[in-house]
Amino acid sequence: MESGPSGGSRPAEPGPRLRGLRGADAAASASSLSRFGAEAGCRAPAVAAVLPAGGSGERMGVPTPKQFCPILERPLISYTLQALERVSWIKDIIVAVTGENMETMKGIIQRYQHKRISLVEAGVTRHRSIFNGLKALAEDQPNCRLSKPEVVIIHDAVRPFVEEDVLLNVVTAAQEHGASGAIRPLVSTVISPSVDSCLDHSLERARYRASEMPQAFLFDVIYEAYQQCSDYDLEFGTECLHLALKYSHIKAKLVEGSPDLWKVTYKRDLYAAESIIKERISQQVCVVMDTKEDEEHVGRCLEEMLKTELNHIKVTSGQDLQQIIVEQCYNFVCMNVMTSDFEETQRLLNMLEESNLSILYPVVVISVSQDAVNVVWYSHLLKNFPQLVVIHTVKGFNIVNETEVDVFLGFLSFLCDPVNVGNLISGSSPFSN
Amino acid sequence: MESGPSGGSRPAEPGPRLRGLRGADAAASASSLSRFGAEAGCRAPAVAAVLPAGGSGERMGVPTPKQFCPILERPLISYTLQALERVSWIKDIIVAVTGENMETMKGIIQRYQHKRISLVEAGVTRHRSIFNGLKALAEDQPNCRLSKPEVVIIHDAVRPFVEEDVLLNVVTAAQEHGASGAIRPLVSTVISPSVDSCLDHSLERARYRASEMPQAFLFDVIYEAYQQCSDYDLEFGTECLHLALKYSHIKAKLVEGSPDLWKVTYKRDLYAAESIIKERISQQVCVVMDTKEDEEHVGRCLEEMLKTELNHIKVTSGQDLQQIIVEQCYNFVCMNVMTSDFEETQRLLNMLEESNLSILYPVVVISVSQDAVNVVWYSHLLKNFPQLVVIHTVKGFNIVNETEVDVFLGFLSFLCDPVNVGNLISGSSPFSN
Repeated sequence: MESGPSGGSRPAEPGPRLRGLRGADAAASASSLSRFGAEAGCRAPAVAAVLPAGGSGERMGVPTPKQFCPILERPLISYTLQALERVSWIKDIIVAVTGENMETMKGIIQRYQHKRISLVEAGVTRHRSIFNGLKALAEDQPNCRLSKPEVVIIHDAVRPFVEEDVLLNVVTAAQEHGASGAIRPLVSTVISPSVDSCLDHSLERARYRASEMPQAFLFDVIYEAYQQCSDYDLEFGTECLHLALKYSHIKAKLVEGSPDLWKVTYKRDLYAAESIIKERISQQVCVVMDTKEDEEHVGRCLEEMLKTELNHIKVTSGQDLQQIIVEQCYNFVCMNVMTSDFEETQRLLNMLEESNLSILYPVVVISVSQDAVNVVWYSHLLKNFPQLVVIHTVKGFNIVNETEVDVFLGFLSFLCDPVNVGNLISGSSPFSN
Repeated sequence: MESGPSGGSRPAEPGPRLRGLRGADAAASASSLSRFGAEAGCRAPAVAAVLPAGGSGERMGVPTPKQFCPILERPLISYTLQALERVSWIKDIIVAVTGENMETMKGIIQRYQHKRISLVEAGVTRHRSIFNGLKALAEDQPNCRLSKPEVVIIHDAVRPFVEEDVLLNVVTAAQEHGASGAIRPLVSTVISPSVDSCLDHSLERARYRASEMPQAFLFDVIYEAYQQCSDYDLEFGTECLHLALKYSHIKAKLVEGSPDLWKVTYKRDLYAAESIIKERISQQVCVVMDTKEDEEHVGRCLEEMLKTELNHIKVTSGQDLQQIIVEQCYNFVCMNVMTSDFEETQRLLNMLEESNLSILYPVVVISVSQDAVNVVWYSHLLKNFPQLVVIHTVKGFNIVNETEVDVFLGFLSFLCDPVNVGNLISGSSPFSN
């Protein structure tokens, strides 16, 4: 495996093995970037991002700070970095971590091959961490290695599902207004307690919003605000938009965000994040047929019937497997209609082993056979996969009728919810008769 | 299965099969109830609960209203009802549902054997639904079948994890202050937008709280408030504490709630709720040994080593299985150390089939054998279980050494996260050698 660079270095291209999807993303980003001109009447700005990641995660009730809590064995912050890296027009990503977590963070960057990341030391509060991140981008600081951006995005390390469109929206609005932030409707009514813990008054829910992340600022606006702001603000404040208003007199433009922007705060949020990630990666499935003839007949028929169930279904008899792996499909169903020597399955497994596909997400392989009498486990092939790979071989799949498509969907439901593998195995009567 | 009663009827005792745990709960409730006298200096009041459940769940992004969305195949509202039913001193539970969901709700009450429930028609807003619920308890209404409580709890159908202690706290505070509500710290800063969607001002997060549920009121206080309040309040308001303040001039006592009080609002919350429920039921495990001798030796040794990992571990050679089932243990590991005829496993499965245990939660059975050469599936025994039951037989378990305890913990991790059943099966090399 090629080592990813640690903080500070800035290769222009993503790693060799992950080029496929990144390439597609880059193309999408380029077209988004051109929207700067078309929609906002201004040129594409230089953009950097600052992520405060110095929190202790006390609300999570676990000893690990929440940004380092594992989701499918990968730390939460790695998902957030991946979400920002996918946006090619973000040139630098500055992460503020505490001294004690610096080595952990470097290890994460190397292991998951993150790019364009610089690390700075976190402060004791959120505002101080952000300020340290901004200083790393400011030209007036000694030893500054990065170039000052026109616009800086501030995002949380614990909001992994941020999408390019909302990043683009806040950056565009910041270019025009000086400051911008994502907002969401309030879920609960907000009330003001009196000193004796009784209700003083409640706020009319419809007139207020929750301030979420990402936010974006003209760099000079927010850097000036941080330079001027009081120790009290740095110590007890939480809201960057408030600093821009108070010290730079900029009224931030508020942008409606999607429900995806929520912050992982409690343990339940880790559960939710894991389920969302599983659902996302399960929506892309590749069906591998063992002959070209099967691809044409059984395969196309299956594709037709399944494409209403899945976002992406691809049927192949193997020629373009390498490309499909490069494009980061994580779910494979091998259909051994004609043969029982599992040649195609074996070839796929070898290719998966050689690729670095399993770095980011678990890979699932299900093998289905018409002829096999016994259940066969390929576990000896899988020693190099730390993540989940299930190989399940059942007999009986032959022609495509409605019953068999139902059974096939039963397999696929495993991809969405692994609990079904139990049902699949103990209830595989359609095959064992 | 005995049918549960539908809305309106009020049997004094829970169903025959679920007596065990309910009995234990009732004892705990009785002792909590005595705290009313000891702690608050007042007698135990008559208490009822009102649950508005007329929402359409538009934020969930699914056609089913969120209170009816399934978690482990059971509708969300059934978990909330179960949480309230466990508290024996809540005499009546009034649920407000829309006319179109009335039959669905009756079906849920019957299927999951809910008790002490009365149904009323929901209004078009939350406040109107609550008002309808209160009317069903008020003596001035025609055809009133229920008796007026001293204190009424108002709770949301979509907050399934409410615990008895917070219910007790709000009821006690309502008795003293007239009104009370649970609060939580704000997760996000709250801001006020101007008409042009720019930041007008942000609130200092530490000075405000999120108003959550449950809330409790002296019945006369909140009923009077609803009778007096304006159509505007009924139409656009959301906060019962506000009505008590505005119309009955009662400043509610605010009680700090636990993170468990959160409201299922978005799809991610359903995922989180499912994971929390799985984690809870997985913490109680019964290990069934095939002989008394094994129970004494292997069993006790296992119990000692596992009790640090699980909240409740019980080892038996089968005499008290019926009692363990009555007490609602959902997870069984059958250790066939001496024999390979699986007699004890078969007996357990028969008892599980005869019980109604699987009504509320899925039951998991794992069978481990020293002698079996092949994997054996008991799927033919399980036709009457709609929920997940996994029977997995592996050879090789013999003496209890550290490696085998690790492997055993591997089994148990399946109870926490079904994804592991895949790893368990494909990675069962310690046994298959």
